[in-house]
Amino acid sequence: MKMIKVGVAGFGVIGQRLADGVASQKDMELVGVADVSPTLSVRALKEKGLPYALYTAVPENKKLFDELGIPVSGTLEELVQKCDVILDATSAGVGAKNKELYAKYNKKAIFQGGEKNNVADVFFHGYANYEKGIGKQFLKLTSCNTTGLIRAVDCIDREVGVEKVAITIIRRVADPGDYHRGLTNALQVDKAPSHQALDLMTIMPHVDATGILVHTPVTHGHIITVLATPKKDISKEQLLEMFSKHPRIRVVKLADGFLGNASLFRYARDLGNPRGDMYEIAVFEESIVKSGKDIMFAINIPQEAVVIPENIDAIRAAMEMQTDRLEGVAETNKYLGMGKWME
Amino acid sequence: MKMIKVGVAGFGVIGQRLADGVASQKDMELVGVADVSPTLSVRALKEKGLPYALYTAVPENKKLFDELGIPVSGTLEELVQKCDVILDATSAGVGAKNKELYAKYNKKAIFQGGEKNNVADVFFHGYANYEKGIGKQFLKLTSCNTTGLIRAVDCIDREVGVEKVAITIIRRVADPGDYHRGLTNALQVDKAPSHQALDLMTIMPHVDATGILVHTPVTHGHIITVLATPKKDISKEQLLEMFSKHPRIRVVKLADGFLGNASLFRYARDLGNPRGDMYEIAVFEESIVKSGKDIMFAINIPQEAVVIPENIDAIRAAMEMQTDRLEGVAETNKYLGMGKWME
Amino acid sequence: MKMIKVGVAGFGVIGQRLADGVASQKDMELVGVADVSPTLSVRALKEKGLPYALYTAVPENKKLFDELGIPVSGTLEELVQKCDVILDATSAGVGAKNKELYAKYNKKAIFQGGEKNNVADVFFHGYANYEKGIGKQFLKLTSCNTTGLIRAVDCIDREVGVEKVAITIIRRVADPGDYHRGLTNALQVDKAPSHQALDLMTIMPHVDATGILVHTPVTHGHIITVLATPKKDISKEQLLEMFSKHPRIRVVKLADGFLGNASLFRYARDLGNPRGDMYEIAVFEESIVKSGKDIMFAINIPQEAVVIPENIDAIRAAMEMQTDRLEGVAETNKYLGMGKWME
Amino acid sequence: MKMIKVGVAGFGVIGQRLADGVASQKDMELVGVADVSPTLSVRALKEKGLPYALYTAVPENKKLFDELGIPVSGTLEELVQKCDVILDATSAGVGAKNKELYAKYNKKAIFQGGEKNNVADVFFHGYANYEKGIGKQFLKLTSCNTTGLIRAVDCIDREVGVEKVAITIIRRVADPGDYHRGLTNALQVDKAPSHQALDLMTIMPHVDATGILVHTPVTHGHIITVLATPKKDISKEQLLEMFSKHPRIRVVKLADGFLGNASLFRYARDLGNPRGDMYEIAVFEESIVKSGKDIMFAINIPQEAVVIPENIDAIRAAMEMQTDRLEGVAETNKYLGMGKWME
Repeated sequence: MKMIKVGVAGFGVIGQRLADGVASQKDMELVGVADVSPTLSVRALKEKGLPYALYTAVPENKKLFDELGIPVSGTLEELVQKCDVILDATSAGVGAKNKELYAKYNKKAIFQGGEKNNVADVFFHGYANYEKGIGKQFLKLTSCNTTGLIRAVDCIDREVGVEKVAITIIRRVADPGDYHRGLTNALQVDKAPSHQALDLMTIMPHVDATGILVHTPVTHGHIITVLATPKKDISKEQLLEMFSKHPRIRVVKLADGFLGNASLFRYARDLGNPRGDMYEIAVFEESIVKSGKDIMFAINIPQEAVVIPENIDAIRAAMEMQTDRLEGVAETNKYLGMGKWME
Repeated sequence: MKMIKVGVAGFGVIGQRLADGVASQKDMELVGVADVSPTLSVRALKEKGLPYALYTAVPENKKLFDELGIPVSGTLEELVQKCDVILDATSAGVGAKNKELYAKYNKKAIFQGGEKNNVADVFFHGYANYEKGIGKQFLKLTSCNTTGLIRAVDCIDREVGVEKVAITIIRRVADPGDYHRGLTNALQVDKAPSHQALDLMTIMPHVDATGILVHTPVTHGHIITVLATPKKDISKEQLLEMFSKHPRIRVVKLADGFLGNASLFRYARDLGNPRGDMYEIAVFEESIVKSGKDIMFAINIPQEAVVIPENIDAIRAAMEMQTDRLEGVAETNKYLGMGKWME
Repeated sequence: MKMIKVGVAGFGVIGQRLADGVASQKDMELVGVADVSPTLSVRALKEKGLPYALYTAVPENKKLFDELGIPVSGTLEELVQKCDVILDATSAGVGAKNKELYAKYNKKAIFQGGEKNNVADVFFHGYANYEKGIGKQFLKLTSCNTTGLIRAVDCIDREVGVEKVAITIIRRVADPGDYHRGLTNALQVDKAPSHQALDLMTIMPHVDATGILVHTPVTHGHIITVLATPKKDISKEQLLEMFSKHPRIRVVKLADGFLGNASLFRYARDLGNPRGDMYEIAVFEESIVKSGKDIMFAINIPQEAVVIPENIDAIRAAMEMQTDRLEGVAETNKYLGMGKWME
Repeated sequence: MKMIKVGVAGFGVIGQRLADGVASQKDMELVGVADVSPTLSVRALKEKGLPYALYTAVPENKKLFDELGIPVSGTLEELVQKCDVILDATSAGVGAKNKELYAKYNKKAIFQGGEKNNVADVFFHGYANYEKGIGKQFLKLTSCNTTGLIRAVDCIDREVGVEKVAITIIRRVADPGDYHRGLTNALQVDKAPSHQALDLMTIMPHVDATGILVHTPVTHGHIITVLATPKKDISKEQLLEMFSKHPRIRVVKLADGFLGNASLFRYARDLGNPRGDMYEIAVFEESIVKSGKDIMFAINIPQEAVVIPENIDAIRAAMEMQTDRLEGVAETNKYLGMGKWME
């Protein structure tokens, strides 16, 4: 089996998790990770024995790493040359600049939701439009909310068709440990429609979507309420069955103690998942309710890790490791251990 | 003009505001307020010079008031005898017991949303079903979220008809100053459908409604997203015009700095409203968005004060002070100073 | 009685309250308030009928007010000319620039805690160093935490002398309605010593002080724990007696339901205080504890309004309205209604 | 090497971490864990393949486990018989009842801070009074705040002696995932002195201690400010050196990005620690400040995991595995991997 060589640019919230995710794939090799300076995450990487080779995105900052005794294997440009594909998880806007570097060495690259759509050849979601990413050089992933939302909507759409959706995103305003942004005792309304609704329509152009996003002062997971109008009437039980078969969707019950986003974070910690991460979205079973043909439900989006599987799918598509959608995502799932709870 | 004599049972978050609201009505006389013990709200009433006569709901607790030098004018039973109508704002379940007292003296009474529907002859909303309350002895008001929600839906319904609504209630979990309940860094999902959707259908039986409620760790105002399917297609501008004419609905703009529930609370404080209260719901102009015939928008519900106008409407209906819906609510609005900003 | 003419520059959180405070003083005339643009607070001022004349701090912004139909009485420069003294409550740093204007017209001015100390001739606290402000042209007030803290420490110091204090400031991170700053599920530690400890030593140079400040995600009042070493041993009862006689200090009990900062905010709202403001700090009776000669206690600082009385004291001192400390503060207290609860 | 057989009663927040901690000790065998019902933590244990044998604390609840297909190895009573020592991490008060069972089979047991002191022969802290626990049958551990606090105070005390301490505990009000308790936009003051100050004096009777505790709406770590009066004057640098040598204390810098409790939680997650746990307390270097002979500093207490090392120390003392304090704690540290960052 040919090992695909992968580099990760940006070792923040997403970059770290991408590195872990790639490292778990038996058909990929994580060549290394790059960041601009010795952040706390880089220090933690060093404290745990530097399992990943570290590169510096800003060559002149190498001395900052040296001062702390953190070994650096080279520059981002050197990392790029050693890789087949780069997962770019830098801050919004930096990816567009890095693209020149990737183009210079004719490497493939996968950008995150914060970049503008025109950075890439295709706006990608592993389950919803895998085929569009096959062989492409530059892919852009959907953001965390959109990624999770599309999983649920695509799941219904492939079974019975979806005509339209209206969503309310109850957004966690900051990640755990964020001190540069926050909200205190306030809900904040965004201009509608939310970009997530628009993005869904870009990925799934046959579905009408709209939505409103409200920021809330919490850190562990967004909750989205989805009102979907399927093309064919389905019962609550049928919806549950669809979701239950999806390896990236967990069905959980309020009655079991899954009361909200914080229960899922706690559960992921108890599972022993690194960082208490969860790749799956969750559907709250008792939130599902019908009104005529419409069906409404609430899902939980673990914002820090939810995009990891679809990023790995993107490598598979771009590198043509699997050219069949279901074969591609199945490989990702297998190595990430997704869907084990279904066994 | 005959002055209707009104008593308030329960001097908590709602009871205090009902007393203030009644006291402002030129055709009503606030005979007094009753509570079970000298709570902080009662102490505050004393500190500001006891503008309202105070009665004790539990006669044997009179000594607790005496010890603090708080003059008590009598018992709740005595208060009831002096009144034409009682606004019962006691804790959920107590109203049902107090009802016996009201019945004993053949008085009218108005219960709050926390009581069961069967406590009353009619489930009442000032704008939506005023006529149903006319002359009735026992009325029950809708809860804060339902009251505000129905204002908005009824406003559209009377203009173009509403076929169905789907709501997401982003609920403030506790009132300012609550220490007996709270939520910390967590969103909590309730079993669907939310009672507010069901209650809306009881008041407006020709509308289909469903919804999901999620609790959030904030104290100043619920936000509800409403997806409405009107019978006749309307534009965003038409919706804005409908709302702008309603004296109990404020249209506010994100662009002006009304970013969420906390902005509205601050604005109400800056207005000099007692307790920083606001009777109106607010619609965030930039949240309004269309999808086909559906129209979606976000409203703010100031949970502490929003039900006051409809409670006063209920007195007007029950006492047959006005037998015309619009005349009744107009009197309430006039004395509460609602809609002045529209002038 | 000569009426002192006062202007307020900056109509934000503090400026609004200064205006209200000055307007309540029978021996002062509020000439007007100035701000740079039609903020929400300015809109609220207009909605309530413009009780104060409004000036624009940036002349070319007059058109912004005009567009909204908000009458403007002139420029800040014109306001300054009409006044004897200006309370400058602009954003930190702006006061230093405005000082040129005040100097140009030879007016007195009082700056807030956010300005640098060198903006003023004296760093002022009404109770602690009134005499130092007498006749001075430029005074700077202590910040909210320092103002409240000094009230308590000065109260003890005048009775028995204070040798040293060590404080922990549990700071509310944002005001109600702030969306530009916030903290979510996090405590944040500041570099020690806190400026409040240093400022206390500037005002009370005979006391040693140190302290640590920790930001917390709440909006209604700072809590400070104070460990004081008095020169003479005092009992808990003696401390309570000292505090109970102070018109700017409330002694409250956990047992009565005053459980923390949120109880005090609720109480102030129930009192009907405009904006739910409270001028007094509060001491939690059951928090007082002794350890050897040291005495420790917790106080609540209502951050939005606590500095108003000392600002008005500063006018009295600067304008030589009263040249005796206790006479000066007593006049302020009388018109603000402070200490009424002690009667 | 004789393997000490250990059982854990109660598989909640603390019990899970005790089990993990014991399992990591090469000279101990984790026989199993017991709980009353299939909680979310038990379900997570099952999902990850049941690495620990599970016993039911309430025999008649076995059917609840059976229904979920969760294999149960027996009852708590059976578990007790197989063990040398039980770590009792049940809810407060249950430990006192379980003690009868431990006594019946003449087993040793270690209780947590929530139990009353009289449940045990000795109130124990690994570093501060290891010797007192040697060979005892029943030990009670200090609570999370007290455990961390004593680490710091004992560290100073052993070098230069400590005369007295005054503490302010800025307490996280709930653990991540708690929905049964919470605080929203409020600080809550407790009756002083805090039990932690009293407990410190029980463990370290030669030190005078007092303190105030304030609850805050956060979930990831308490912060305590400590004002210590050492017997011998020490500089900030000397204090830093003492702390830096302690394997259960991390010295961290604001300048590096360790801004508060949330930074430490994030760092622990990035380290890959199971559940993002951290056994060490942290001292914020820039919080250290002197005032005369007094020295003040702020520490972070990771409430979920901080007591694990001292619990394992307690096993070592009670079972006489090591009869020397430093040898005992060193073994615990070695197997928990503590102090590795110092290498």
